[in-house]
Amino acid sequence: MRSRLTKAGIPVPRHAVLSAPDDVAAFAAELAVSRESAPPADGSDLAAPVVLKTTRGGYDGKGVWVVTSLARAGEPFRAGVPVLAEELVAFRRELSAVVARSPYGQAVAYPVVESVQRDGICVEVVAPAPALPDDLAVEAQRIALTIAAELGVVGVLAVELFETVDGRILVNELAMRPHNTGHWTIDGAATSQFENHLRAVLDLPLGSPAARAPYAVMVNVLGGDAPDVYSAYRHCMARDPALKIHWYGKELRPGRKVGHVTVCGDDVDDLRDRARHAAAHLRGDIDE
Amino acid sequence: MRSRLTKAGIPVPRHAVLSAPDDVAAFAAELAVSRESAPPADGSDLAAPVVLKTTRGGYDGKGVWVVTSLARAGEPFRAGVPVLAEELVAFRRELSAVVARSPYGQAVAYPVVESVQRDGICVEVVAPAPALPDDLAVEAQRIALTIAAELGVVGVLAVELFETVDGRILVNELAMRPHNTGHWTIDGAATSQFENHLRAVLDLPLGSPAARAPYAVMVNVLGGDAPDVYSAYRHCMARDPALKIHWYGKELRPGRKVGHVTVCGDDVDDLRDRARHAAAHLRGDIDE
Repeated sequence: MRSRLTKAGIPVPRHAVLSAPDDVAAFAAELAVSRESAPPADGSDLAAPVVLKTTRGGYDGKGVWVVTSLARAGEPFRAGVPVLAEELVAFRRELSAVVARSPYGQAVAYPVVESVQRDGICVEVVAPAPALPDDLAVEAQRIALTIAAELGVVGVLAVELFETVDGRILVNELAMRPHNTGHWTIDGAATSQFENHLRAVLDLPLGSPAARAPYAVMVNVLGGDAPDVYSAYRHCMARDPALKIHWYGKELRPGRKVGHVTVCGDDVDDLRDRARHAAAHLRGDIDE
Repeated sequence: MRSRLTKAGIPVPRHAVLSAPDDVAAFAAELAVSRESAPPADGSDLAAPVVLKTTRGGYDGKGVWVVTSLARAGEPFRAGVPVLAEELVAFRRELSAVVARSPYGQAVAYPVVESVQRDGICVEVVAPAPALPDDLAVEAQRIALTIAAELGVVGVLAVELFETVDGRILVNELAMRPHNTGHWTIDGAATSQFENHLRAVLDLPLGSPAARAPYAVMVNVLGGDAPDVYSAYRHCMARDPALKIHWYGKELRPGRKVGHVTVCGDDVDDLRDRARHAAAHLRGDIDE
């Protein structure tokens, strides 16, 4: 993925595919040559921190290691598959650009969102990304549309991006499907990512990706300690009649994504408070 | 229904239950006493026009007769069931107030809409009713909420109303279910009438009935002459990406409601043009 995007002129983190732990030190030394690279950890024997990713089976942060010393570089190689090594990008925040493309070649780009990750899991999305400069938003959409066309994507493509501390955009990951960072579109856009995915697959004209309110905030509901989820559900509905609660019908397991809440309106701070409160209540972290 | 509402202090058209055609002349004479009544038709032997409705089996304008001469008064009585006679209300337009009520007694009122009827079928709904004075809108919502509470309604109740030429509100019909005049809420309200119907039936807290845009226009799609509905469907999607097209999966028969389109935004004239164009195209009345 990284080499294909590089060939297409898409900005990605510096990277290399490594086959043994000993290669990690050399890759770190290469990174350290660049001024933009993150500094080495205190007392580290690596010239720069390195992100190592297994090239098979990773998801939601699993299969990713941030390595700051050579002693920790062995584990990712134990699975016996090549390891992708990358610079540890110094980023301000993570963004996501969701697009849909039909076989006819029509494509639409949703507003670029800010995605907040915790422990490798997307926990919150704000649409559009607050205070994102227009040129970066357009650049993020352009990147996503270019990738969709370049790879002949049919359906929804989510491009997860870093907004770097020095104001650049780098592609982090691709997801060729309706994506967690697009769930807000069910309630917040003229056409949801799911509807546009189906329209694309059916080669129908795509629907407007325009937002229906100045802001939408989506917070994931994770399985937790709520003793009585149905009672929490009723509480959240009663407390906030404009809140939209989505359950996935999954068994509740701690930390598993089991649903999400979305709320749309003008005041992003208010929306964030309301969505976070509901998600925390549904998880059982708070009981009022 | 009329007598129950009258007892509850709800304004309804003047009415009587008649058992034979001869009663129609007397009822018309009573109506003529009132200054608000519609004038008699030219050369009519009735002192005022009378609306006659069968008390069983009517829908979508079927089972309703507007009678301006005694000679035409016989037909409604032929089914052998009592006939409801009413004044022909001189109305400016028809309105609808949709509310939802839960067993707990919570109730929400949607914005009052204008409903346009043709041949006894609702063809178009504008939400909210343009230029409706606030006091009449509140009165319409109050009437609908009163009826829902008075009759112990659980779920959605649509109250179809006349806005009279002299600026009053009269109840025309009740529908105790999600209703054609509430279909706009799927795309145009924070919570659709269908979601609130289910919430009510499940005795869950009700969702916000607030509109999501200054205006929504819904136009019914009737079965017609379109030789290739799928091609018309694609055309409408391509022409207006923000248009929402809903198909009911029914067999197409001329004049039958087979779907509807909704479009939301700021400019009610523009929305009306777009929704009417799409519905006409889907019906096959126009082909560009």
